[in-house]
Amino acid sequence: MSFWKKYQTIIKSNKSYVCVGLDSELSKLPIHILETKDPIFEFNKAIIDATKDLVACYKPNFAFYLSQGLKSLESLQKTIAYIPDNIPVILDIKAGDIGNTMANYARAFFQNWNVDAITCNPLMGQDVIKALAPFEDNFAFVLALTSNPSASDYLKPNDLYKKISADISGLPTSQFGAVVGGTNTEELLELRRLMPESLFLIPGIGAQGGSLQEVVLNTLHTKTDARFLINSSRGIIFADSSINFAQVAREKTELLRTQINKIIAEMR
Amino acid sequence: MSFWKKYQTIIKSNKSYVCVGLDSELSKLPIHILETKDPIFEFNKAIIDATKDLVACYKPNFAFYLSQGLKSLESLQKTIAYIPDNIPVILDIKAGDIGNTMANYARAFFQNWNVDAITCNPLMGQDVIKALAPFEDNFAFVLALTSNPSASDYLKPNDLYKKISADISGLPTSQFGAVVGGTNTEELLELRRLMPESLFLIPGIGAQGGSLQEVVLNTLHTKTDARFLINSSRGIIFADSSINFAQVAREKTELLRTQINKIIAEMR
Repeated sequence: MSFWKKYQTIIKSNKSYVCVGLDSELSKLPIHILETKDPIFEFNKAIIDATKDLVACYKPNFAFYLSQGLKSLESLQKTIAYIPDNIPVILDIKAGDIGNTMANYARAFFQNWNVDAITCNPLMGQDVIKALAPFEDNFAFVLALTSNPSASDYLKPNDLYKKISADISGLPTSQFGAVVGGTNTEELLELRRLMPESLFLIPGIGAQGGSLQEVVLNTLHTKTDARFLINSSRGIIFADSSINFAQVAREKTELLRTQINKIIAEMR
Repeated sequence: MSFWKKYQTIIKSNKSYVCVGLDSELSKLPIHILETKDPIFEFNKAIIDATKDLVACYKPNFAFYLSQGLKSLESLQKTIAYIPDNIPVILDIKAGDIGNTMANYARAFFQNWNVDAITCNPLMGQDVIKALAPFEDNFAFVLALTSNPSASDYLKPNDLYKKISADISGLPTSQFGAVVGGTNTEELLELRRLMPESLFLIPGIGAQGGSLQEVVLNTLHTKTDARFLINSSRGIIFADSSINFAQVAREKTELLRTQINKIIAEMR
């Protein structure tokens, strides 16, 4: 099933816009998990088992699967395979290269690894996008305005993020969306205006300081299809480091899901 | 030994500014190599054996080591380990993420994989650079102005590449350099003016149409330390697909080395 169809289906079946970020850094895992044979996978498996009826998607970040060399990438592949097929998997890799190089990433991650979507970095221009366009069942979230403080170094001056956003808006909605940092309170409304139909992947809520209320109010598409996925990583998966971490992750996921849905329901 | 020391030493011992790009895509390897147990590694090994006295560095591109899943990444790790220790290895991955995420890339590639340098994408701003700064023995080539046609989409308007270049210029020369596309004939002089001391990694010569003469004349730092690494990938490694591919790769590397040195020698 295509990413887009999975997205449309899961937001209704799980009544959720929550993206759980699987930033499963080995050094941060609970001690009792470190004693298992494949700690990263065991950790992810427990998180997935505890949250799969509450999420809209999972987003593993590639960088956190390199700590033990290829063994950790194997844990990543096992994690992707373990995620139920109806839940979209977004590999956060911020890939940005051209032509055949980018096509190699796409073939590898979409076809061999069975990932539904990736994040990509548009700095090198339309060549990045062109290479992804043939993969019609997959999806790419293009960095439009990130959530980190230094997003203001290059993305904000001369309205670069607006130019990138306008370009994203011209791409097929079912194949391309935008990464929009939830910390950019002042720009959220403008970003939605520039990309009225685009699916937003929104990091930066919670630990990074973005306000959930403002994110939802300013970026909602419609009440039945918000067109956003609100990410929480550490705030969910590392909320507790005891033997109860998965149960606490479930509670945090449920809380975030409820908060988002409540803000939407109360909108006029 | 640090990347910077390796660079300073190899350009003298091998009298070379040639970077051989190991874009060793499985589908493009000579047929007789495909019959070996680990074709990607066997191919690279033959190229390295044939060129190691002629090069300034090797640059494998991460994307081309994903075709067969983790097996190809193992071939990449074997390749990195096989490259003689005095020759710098640049992993072309165009990584661009923040804080702890970027530090994870750095730890993995610099410390576990034993890579000397990476390429990185600065779109997310100084946070990308800050995370790399503590790795003083390593090096990062920051995308300043790439060689592909759509570099003009975001990097050229409003002189974004000039702003990025000025920022690179302010970083320690022994830790940060710039990716400067050889196709940008009109901007080369300006790029060197903006980054007078920085080491340039220059793709785009040959297949992509950049003129070697103009690249050398416009970006040379000094006659004894050019401060550039001129990359050729396909033009060297896939110049011949017969059983003689390694010998032909040697000839192409030697030709490029000679051409560069000749242009430098003839400069006033």
